[in-house]
Amino acid sequence: MTYQGHIVLFVGGVGGAKLAHGLYHTLKPQQLTIIVNTGDDFWHYGLRICPDVDTIMYTLGGLVNRAQGWGVADDTFTAFETLRRYGESPWFRLGDQDLATHMTRTARLREGATLTQITRDLSASVGIKCVILPMTDSPVSTIAHTQAHGDLAFQEYFVKHRWQPALRSLSFVGIEDARITPEVSEAISRADAIIIGPSNPWLSIQPILQVPGLRDLIGGRDVPRIAVTPLIGGRAVKGPTAKIMAEFGLDVSVKTVVEYYSDLINGFAYDERDAAPELPTDAAHIRLNALNTLMDDEHARQRLAHDIIAWLADWSMK
Amino acid sequence: MTYQGHIVLFVGGVGGAKLAHGLYHTLKPQQLTIIVNTGDDFWHYGLRICPDVDTIMYTLGGLVNRAQGWGVADDTFTAFETLRRYGESPWFRLGDQDLATHMTRTARLREGATLTQITRDLSASVGIKCVILPMTDSPVSTIAHTQAHGDLAFQEYFVKHRWQPALRSLSFVGIEDARITPEVSEAISRADAIIIGPSNPWLSIQPILQVPGLRDLIGGRDVPRIAVTPLIGGRAVKGPTAKIMAEFGLDVSVKTVVEYYSDLINGFAYDERDAAPELPTDAAHIRLNALNTLMDDEHARQRLAHDIIAWLADWSMK
Repeated sequence: MTYQGHIVLFVGGVGGAKLAHGLYHTLKPQQLTIIVNTGDDFWHYGLRICPDVDTIMYTLGGLVNRAQGWGVADDTFTAFETLRRYGESPWFRLGDQDLATHMTRTARLREGATLTQITRDLSASVGIKCVILPMTDSPVSTIAHTQAHGDLAFQEYFVKHRWQPALRSLSFVGIEDARITPEVSEAISRADAIIIGPSNPWLSIQPILQVPGLRDLIGGRDVPRIAVTPLIGGRAVKGPTAKIMAEFGLDVSVKTVVEYYSDLINGFAYDERDAAPELPTDAAHIRLNALNTLMDDEHARQRLAHDIIAWLADWSMK
Repeated sequence: MTYQGHIVLFVGGVGGAKLAHGLYHTLKPQQLTIIVNTGDDFWHYGLRICPDVDTIMYTLGGLVNRAQGWGVADDTFTAFETLRRYGESPWFRLGDQDLATHMTRTARLREGATLTQITRDLSASVGIKCVILPMTDSPVSTIAHTQAHGDLAFQEYFVKHRWQPALRSLSFVGIEDARITPEVSEAISRADAIIIGPSNPWLSIQPILQVPGLRDLIGGRDVPRIAVTPLIGGRAVKGPTAKIMAEFGLDVSVKTVVEYYSDLINGFAYDERDAAPELPTDAAHIRLNALNTLMDDEHARQRLAHDIIAWLADWSMK
């Protein structure tokens, strides 16, 4: 691999973490900056929890529970189970090792550090050499407006109710006041390529793209800007992407995803198992590439990372 | 035991917890209200920790680590040890079970509950039938002014530095604005006897007595108001009572303790190993009682509780 460019990758949690992991082990660390959704972040038992940032960090740091794709491997749940002693019915599974992450983060937030600074230091502590950036240091809270349960804080919707309630719409509280950090701005400005990971476009990528100014910053870059499909064979590998597309009245197809990103991207990687999506006339500039996007083991992650990088390396020759 | 009165006991942590435990197992639970120092409370890794309240609660709830007198028996320290992963050097030993207490408390404080309400619920959850009250719901922070290390937050002085720095003085930040709770006020007002436990008079009892109005409330009650000596043979059973008396330039003797409490008490239990303290002329009203105050096992705790209750039962006959 002779690609020397700097890649900015946008991701949410588990799905995006797989591609992040593949790229991390294919590129030199200084070639990769990962910008992570923080719309899922929440306060829980007094602690600030950043599920997507932690999933990326645990995955790249080699700490992750590989079977579930999040949390720390071989963690214990003593504190979590003890909450029941006090009549609590905890639903967000917090491991004892995981708690140390939230405790350190919360202590530093209370001292006035930014999430960007804290994430940098936590990442370095677990040996991560690339840059992981929260999408913003401003607090943003995704709210799921559901049919059956009314408005739910994101983790209540996603974890407590296991994304089963039908979704009417989403809102991102605080997003109007969210500010792009200098680190995010600089990473996008100097990127040689921008990748939108195979994360849920509505739940995970949408909050990132709604940080005021961020869409323009991405769209203004004359570099490869590619999205990787979150759907294979009309289904999400994991999670509710297809389910919520149907709930939003959208056609559950790769074409819908391409259209969703069409004003932002100039390349789209669909899965080789699928037919090439028809492009709307105003999206004829989008280059399509059929890749094996199923990352069912570490080899597959690196294969996809390799294929994407090969595409980027050839980009300007076409 | 035919004593039917209601006792209010003032305590700090480990030492006071022994007498609290003895009284709890000697009286009917509704006869006992325990008012606990909260000057030691602090924020640590984003969590609100109330060391004295927890020690009393764990002791009465039968959860306590008996060897050390605080913390939860057979607790694990996974979260605590994992903090080191992030370069932290934690010095306040937090067990995983213990964390669940702080997490529940912090979550409820953030929701707007008072420490009094939270302590009531946590206590009930671990099966405690008597009332445990924080001295106030207002935040009060004991600061240790030391020779060698300047001003230290209480737990830094007591735990991190193991009370080794010589103490110049103490201050209780927030105490002027601290308010007596209705629960504390009512308990004192209807008490048939008031006991100041064998806790450190300066570190543990002083902050309680400095809650504005509390001294007057105690002093105004025409009931037995007795203190139990924190010194035996001129030494503290555990902790820095004798050490800080010397550092404050005080005579390290039971007499000094009696004088310290003299405007508040009308009875004092000194240890039977010691000579009866001389009473200053203005403290001639204080009744003295020589008891075995060494609580080196559970039997001894109940024996002392029994002896004190017997004294109270006989009080009005003398």
